[in-house]
Amino acid sequence: MSYGGSVGISPGNVAVHHAKCDAKLVEWRVKIAELVLRVLVLGLGVAAAALIGANSEVKVIFSITKKAKFTDMKSLVFLVVVNGIVATYSLVQVVRCAVGIFRGSVLFSKPLAWLIFSGDQVMAYLTLAAVAAALQSSVIGKFGQPELQWMKICDLYKKFCTQAGEGVASALLVSLCTVILSWISAYSLFRLYGGRKGKADSRW
Amino acid sequence: MSYGGSVGISPGNVAVHHAKCDAKLVEWRVKIAELVLRVLVLGLGVAAAALIGANSEVKVIFSITKKAKFTDMKSLVFLVVVNGIVATYSLVQVVRCAVGIFRGSVLFSKPLAWLIFSGDQVMAYLTLAAVAAALQSSVIGKFGQPELQWMKICDLYKKFCTQAGEGVASALLVSLCTVILSWISAYSLFRLYGGRKGKADSRW
Repeated sequence: MSYGGSVGISPGNVAVHHAKCDAKLVEWRVKIAELVLRVLVLGLGVAAAALIGANSEVKVIFSITKKAKFTDMKSLVFLVVVNGIVATYSLVQVVRCAVGIFRGSVLFSKPLAWLIFSGDQVMAYLTLAAVAAALQSSVIGKFGQPELQWMKICDLYKKFCTQAGEGVASALLVSLCTVILSWISAYSLFRLYGGRKGKADSRW
Repeated sequence: MSYGGSVGISPGNVAVHHAKCDAKLVEWRVKIAELVLRVLVLGLGVAAAALIGANSEVKVIFSITKKAKFTDMKSLVFLVVVNGIVATYSLVQVVRCAVGIFRGSVLFSKPLAWLIFSGDQVMAYLTLAAVAAALQSSVIGKFGQPELQWMKICDLYKKFCTQAGEGVASALLVSLCTVILSWISAYSLFRLYGGRKGKADSRW
């Protein structure tokens, strides 16, 4: 008459066990995706800052030397600064994610989850704004705005424009990754609230 | 020996009652704040689109007629379109909020809360990107970018620049409001998950 044994392998318990396994698998996949995205942001952020920050081209036209450098476009300077900030932030987050994966969940506290959610949101807003401004400058540089007598410069500075384009493309990927990351950190925050069985309600 | 009566007014019950009242008060304030912000976004969005969309100036210089219009700057066209979209979205949300306040909570379902959270996020990203691009154009228009031979145009088109500046300022306020709103809708979503006593966990 071993009730304990029969309860241990009842269909209900097996179903609960399966649900827990599925939840753990989803959590694991989300953590890996987060780590990959943060590494991508770190790499692409550094690449964007380096590509744009090291960008310059010298042209000699009728013995007059002309130089194009990234500081001529204030939006590119802003993009370099923002990508530097995002890369630094991502480095810290990569370490946190890696520690979280190898030691088990680090995201135990709501204030920390809120901090990460807020940080990711700020980064997404910052990178989007910087990319939008830089894209606007790049479009003027590439096609000009003849109605306002702003002439295109890419016919003259081909190498400068190509490198700037690569930098802006990297920065665009960075901002897309930060948008996805801010969703993942919202998801992590929701899980934390859902998992605490409604105790969160009194905290608000 | 009326235990029921003594339990009814016990300090514990009074504390629970107070906590519930506090929670309801917070919820009420958040709803009002959300409604006010959505009305602001609607009004300022329409104002921004109208100010920029109706912006043009004609100048006669040495018998040559020159005209500046908002379509000369592609970023201003983008800003008008985005503000139109945001204003329309806000109109729908204002109706939802008003119904929610006068009839009690409408936000009963998680899919709806997720939809609003997602919508608010998209609006925040869109408006920020549009404002950043328009600000970049405006800065070039105001101060020029002499290194690239992009001359300032605001000395010539004073009225055009002033009106564009007012439009961009309105759009900037719109984007700040959408950022705050996306936080409020995240808060509403968290409340929904917290209040369901952890059942959310199985949904992920």
